Amino acid sequence: MTKSADTYLVCDPWQIIEENWNRERNLVSESVFSLGNEHMGVRGYAEEGINAETLQGSYFNGIYEEADLNRSYKGIITKTHFMVNSVDWLYAEIHADDELLDIASCDIENFRRVLDMKDGTLKRSFDWRTKSGPVVHLEFIRFLSMDSPGTAYQKINFSVSGGDVSLTVVIANNFNTSHGWNKKNYWDMTRREWFTSGAAIQGKTIRTGQQVFSGFTFRTNINVQCGKKVAEKFAGFEIILALKNGESAWIEKCVYNHISKERDSAGDPVWIKGCEIMKDDPVDFDTALEKQRKYWDTFWKNADIKIEGDPLNQQGIRFCIFQMQQTYNGYDPTNNIGAKGLTGEAYNGHAFWDTETYCLPFYLFSNPQAARNLLSFRYATLDTARDRARQLDCEGACYPIATLNGEEACSLWQHASLQFQPSTAVAYGIRHYVNLCQDTEFLYEQGAEMLVEISRFLASRGSWNNDGTGFGFYAVMGPDEFHMMVNHNCYTNFMAKKTFEYTEQVLQTMEKEQPKKFAVFCKKLKLSQNERMNFVLCADKMIILFDEKTKIFEQHEGYYTLPRMEISKIPVTDFPLYHNWSYDRIYRTSMIKQPDVLMFLFLYNQEFSRDIKKANYDYYEPNTIHESSLSPSIHSIFASELGKHSEAFRFFGFATRMDLDNYNRNTVEGLHTTSIAAAWMNIVYGFAGLRSDGNYLSLNPVLPEKWTGYEFGILYRNAHIRISVTAKDIVLSSNDEISEPIPLKIFSELHSFTSAGLTISLSKKQD
Amino acid sequence: MTKSADTYLVCDPWQIIEENWNRERNLVSESVFSLGNEHMGVRGYAEEGINAETLQGSYFNGIYEEADLNRSYKGIITKTHFMVNSVDWLYAEIHADDELLDIASCDIENFRRVLDMKDGTLKRSFDWRTKSGPVVHLEFIRFLSMDSPGTAYQKINFSVSGGDVSLTVVIANNFNTSHGWNKKNYWDMTRREWFTSGAAIQGKTIRTGQQVFSGFTFRTNINVQCGKKVAEKFAGFEIILALKNGESAWIEKCVYNHISKERDSAGDPVWIKGCEIMKDDPVDFDTALEKQRKYWDTFWKNADIKIEGDPLNQQGIRFCIFQMQQTYNGYDPTNNIGAKGLTGEAYNGHAFWDTETYCLPFYLFSNPQAARNLLSFRYATLDTARDRARQLDCEGACYPIATLNGEEACSLWQHASLQFQPSTAVAYGIRHYVNLCQDTEFLYEQGAEMLVEISRFLASRGSWNNDGTGFGFYAVMGPDEFHMMVNHNCYTNFMAKKTFEYTEQVLQTMEKEQPKKFAVFCKKLKLSQNERMNFVLCADKMIILFDEKTKIFEQHEGYYTLPRMEISKIPVTDFPLYHNWSYDRIYRTSMIKQPDVLMFLFLYNQEFSRDIKKANYDYYEPNTIHESSLSPSIHSIFASELGKHSEAFRFFGFATRMDLDNYNRNTVEGLHTTSIAAAWMNIVYGFAGLRSDGNYLSLNPVLPEKWTGYEFGILYRNAHIRISVTAKDIVLSSNDEISEPIPLKIFSELHSFTSAGLTISLSKKQD
Repeated sequence: MTKSADTYLVCDPWQIIEENWNRERNLVSESVFSLGNEHMGVRGYAEEGINAETLQGSYFNGIYEEADLNRSYKGIITKTHFMVNSVDWLYAEIHADDELLDIASCDIENFRRVLDMKDGTLKRSFDWRTKSGPVVHLEFIRFLSMDSPGTAYQKINFSVSGGDVSLTVVIANNFNTSHGWNKKNYWDMTRREWFTSGAAIQGKTIRTGQQVFSGFTFRTNINVQCGKKVAEKFAGFEIILALKNGESAWIEKCVYNHISKERDSAGDPVWIKGCEIMKDDPVDFDTALEKQRKYWDTFWKNADIKIEGDPLNQQGIRFCIFQMQQTYNGYDPTNNIGAKGLTGEAYNGHAFWDTETYCLPFYLFSNPQAARNLLSFRYATLDTARDRARQLDCEGACYPIATLNGEEACSLWQHASLQFQPSTAVAYGIRHYVNLCQDTEFLYEQGAEMLVEISRFLASRGSWNNDGTGFGFYAVMGPDEFHMMVNHNCYTNFMAKKTFEYTEQVLQTMEKEQPKKFAVFCKKLKLSQNERMNFVLCADKMIILFDEKTKIFEQHEGYYTLPRMEISKIPVTDFPLYHNWSYDRIYRTSMIKQPDVLMFLFLYNQEFSRDIKKANYDYYEPNTIHESSLSPSIHSIFASELGKHSEAFRFFGFATRMDLDNYNRNTVEGLHTTSIAAAWMNIVYGFAGLRSDGNYLSLNPVLPEKWTGYEFGILYRNAHIRISVTAKDIVLSSNDEISEPIPLKIFSELHSFTSAGLTISLSKKQD
Repeated sequence: MTKSADTYLVCDPWQIIEENWNRERNLVSESVFSLGNEHMGVRGYAEEGINAETLQGSYFNGIYEEADLNRSYKGIITKTHFMVNSVDWLYAEIHADDELLDIASCDIENFRRVLDMKDGTLKRSFDWRTKSGPVVHLEFIRFLSMDSPGTAYQKINFSVSGGDVSLTVVIANNFNTSHGWNKKNYWDMTRREWFTSGAAIQGKTIRTGQQVFSGFTFRTNINVQCGKKVAEKFAGFEIILALKNGESAWIEKCVYNHISKERDSAGDPVWIKGCEIMKDDPVDFDTALEKQRKYWDTFWKNADIKIEGDPLNQQGIRFCIFQMQQTYNGYDPTNNIGAKGLTGEAYNGHAFWDTETYCLPFYLFSNPQAARNLLSFRYATLDTARDRARQLDCEGACYPIATLNGEEACSLWQHASLQFQPSTAVAYGIRHYVNLCQDTEFLYEQGAEMLVEISRFLASRGSWNNDGTGFGFYAVMGPDEFHMMVNHNCYTNFMAKKTFEYTEQVLQTMEKEQPKKFAVFCKKLKLSQNERMNFVLCADKMIILFDEKTKIFEQHEGYYTLPRMEISKIPVTDFPLYHNWSYDRIYRTSMIKQPDVLMFLFLYNQEFSRDIKKANYDYYEPNTIHESSLSPSIHSIFASELGKHSEAFRFFGFATRMDLDNYNRNTVEGLHTTSIAAAWMNIVYGFAGLRSDGNYLSLNPVLPEKWTGYEFGILYRNAHIRISVTAKDIVLSSNDEISEPIPLKIFSELHSFTSAGLTISLSKKQD
């Protein structure tokens, strides 16, 4: 790993603070200071405009455009889609006399930008020494309502010293936004209206025809001169604030965004609904901020992770948790989690298998409804996954590698046609969710159908070997991604085996518990006993390349004979390899990008002995280049489990501060949102040793040497349990009423957790 | 193989004849009736224009345009190039009174189109019953000079019956041509001039800036009214022929095309040179036609293949030989052979490894200078191949999969980055040429340098296995193309081994024979003894997957364990698989597209025992789908060698008439030019059993059951030898003076061929 920190933010337990604006870091800061509420997201850009590299990104979850691809073979997609830069509802052009405010070129002092994780506000303040003499002190505050996700607030405070100033402020909602990577605008205006102290404008994406209503009202605290400001795809007001020396004023703007994700959606219903929301939800800034504070208070009470003795990681992990909640919190089951959340355009807003494998656990232990919604997203897109399977000449349903709307959007055929971890991850997610949350209603209404269709896909994509003794997958790519068109990739085969088994287990239970429903289910899906027997057979005969003697799984057929790459000998300047190596060169050695065998050992952790885990960790880790930001956390978790504590802490090194310190030098593109989830897992599954894949939840906490203690919360069996670990002991407590004792394994010993709490001495457990 | 003939051409030994124009076959006929002379090519289109699907294609060897590709990884090309549709120098718009001639909509009778292979002319004639009553009989004749390849001739004969007619004929050279696949014009006009009875126009490709001068003069046999015809990118004359009932007239046009392949070439020198040629080469139509007849007479004397008892294949093989000579004849060493020759735009005019493996033998045995020129093309592009190796993070030189100018133009990275058969084919071509033609001057001036650079590439692209006992290639694609990212593809490894060995052999001989030159050579190439030792070591330790017991080479590591595809069970409607199967699906079974192991057994035929050839043929043929048009001929050649005569004839089935009968249903796109070369090999290497890869040339002729005899010619050791095979005997004869007896193996027995000829009784040899 070749990472270095670019530390420029002030360390603080609850705030992210930038002092002094820096042109080179503008794009990074815009990413770091992003706000979101699942429904929409906005980068931390300067709303008054800036003459520097900027991405004035404003996104809605599920609002996208499409582009054609020229591909010539069946099963290779011919169009892709991408989350599109949308309305700039923060537009605020400011003139002092004749001078345009631009922090990149004006005389600016005392610049400070603060993200407050206790109330979800972003504040930006500075002094502007105007060319005509007087100093204008400005403060911009914005936040996105967590309760009413279409609503957002902006406030601009002005005060003047050193003379009188006439300030001209244009506030607007503006559809003239440029999509970042190609500088193209994707919006047609469909309607616009001005009201007394507000306006509304509606835009439609040019190709997909999705509608976005964006209205606002505004207030000021002094009498102002004010008029309509009209421009193309733009609805605003020009406000003139004539401030005398020592005077101050503010403008408050309340924004109401309402969207329709439907393709070619009719404009009128969206407009009418938008206007209704504007009328019904006219909360003023201060009242809304109060509600916002309460929301985050409640959230942190349960979700916070406290770290003692490590302020940098303390700030880092809170930033991670805050961003997870901003990106996704279960508001709308048609949303998912983009690899960069709603903070940038890299990865096009696409959700990957990261959702089920890296993000789901955070929600499973904080917000089961959100976890369920993530799975319902897959159910809602099941028909599209069925279509995709057909395109691949297969049966059942194949979930896409990358998507916003359920359609495959990955333009690299070698990933889209050869990687099946999204499908097996959905099956795993269902199992994980149902086991922990015991939601059989979901299982029988949605989960079972997905399981059958995924199993069908796997059964039709896999093949029997020539003597009919073994089943497996040919020409695939595992999660590793540095080996392509391989046979019997252990991850793919193993996860398929588990999918078949779990599907049959669910079917058997359903058959027994709800025979009538089951009969209807089978009829609807044309599911026969023969087909079920075939699933079982495929599972039983699945080829798993395991050597009893060495306890090592071979990553795929022939992996052992690949030339071994000595990773430590690769010059630092070669990283990232995708940029500096010829593409084919990364595919011809033993080097792997990210956990593959270790990944299924992680997901089904409790099914494997410590010996197996150790043997495979020791074998594969030295072959792993960690070119995915998700890789180090998984390795850290294993290192913890195997007692390699300093190694575990080394891999944890930059997990929580990946973006705050721009370790991968690409935070300009947006936050590593799914990595943020891995940071949470790194502490909860790694240091605290939580395991959630078996019959009992189990904990095996260790305390990193550098820390004096840490504390985190999990919601399990309807109880919010706080778990605190120090060198001395581990203390479990809850303020909730616990009707039935909750079984928990701690250091392999089964305990019953009740309202009375639980304390276990740690002194003799540390190895 | 799922092919069916669309037979619509008249069977004739020396002519290709189409009677009655058919709208549906217009594009096919345009391809079949293409003319070319290596320098330029023109499809058999109706020069007067046609209101039907048409590709009025006119191409120059080496005149191309470029297009950008969006690729994001190193070593994956970001632009490609393609042979561009160029000036229409046959333009001939014809009006009778107010009616425009269009064979697709006018009242046309007695349509006949004839390609005469004895003089290389294309004649098209028909009667046009005009709307005003009279009938105009038209005959269009065209040919491209084989002696002066920039020059071409067009003649239009008119005669009138049933009344008087005023004919208006516009003849022109016209740069308003549309590139076929995207209907785009790629030409800027740089200069234009009219002369007394002629004009010239010069065009420049928009992006590559190559210049094409196209001038013409014309004559008529009667007094006509005549004036300049001006239009954009167009230089012409309008000629009015007032013909009375029973009168006739003709217009002759002589065209002079001169090109500069240089990028951004200066226009003036090209213009001046073009005008000079026009002045210096003003041969009239009849004189030129006489020269043309003589050219083809001489050619056929040596190159003809006669087949007795099979008129369809007789016509077919002559068409093949004719097209080979039209496509390439050694006129210019900067030319090469496109997969579709100069007859269409599919494959973009690109040359592939087909040049060295399929086409070279035809020239080796008819025109050694042409063979040498093909190899000099590779020498001229050696620096570009060096650049390509660098892009792939390798040393030495890597020859492109597809190219017009030496740059890699294959836009599918999986082929461009994983297939190295072009590089080993160049090495094989050098060896083949030098062994047969004993041209050590070429070897030391050009060949040796290419060999060293190819060996360097191979040594850097390959890898040692982990215990250092074996060398080979990881993550490659063999000629088969249905298996990707495989290790130790036997073809790749074997051909690399032979390349290393031959390189060292050449270096040793050069060192001994020309020590001074060799010292300079080593210095220039920085070639050390160590590097040579490394080549030898790589060759010695090359991993070749061969099983002594079964005598079978495993196509690549793991091939045996792939699920076996029962090819006969694939429904006919699934072909071609590339169109009907999901792309990844073709990559996951034992099915192979075209010979891979059999290909190196073919190229190094004499190094392998009959047992080995039989074992591998019997094993691989049933796995082969022959989706490449080059595949059946190689299998036919093996079947002949192995005494499977009916199988051999079955594979030969459509070799000579691939395009005449449109077997692959894609002759619309152009002729299968490199397949045409395979048809020649199919007879000479297949039925006649010629082998040219050992120390002696050897022959093992058989007579296909259906034939009563066949005869072909080879040029070997400066002697034109005719070889005639009947059921009774094989007769070798030559009219040339043979100073030294030529050793030849016939049925494994060494003979000395002299001017006296040689007759060998066949009666007891047939098995």
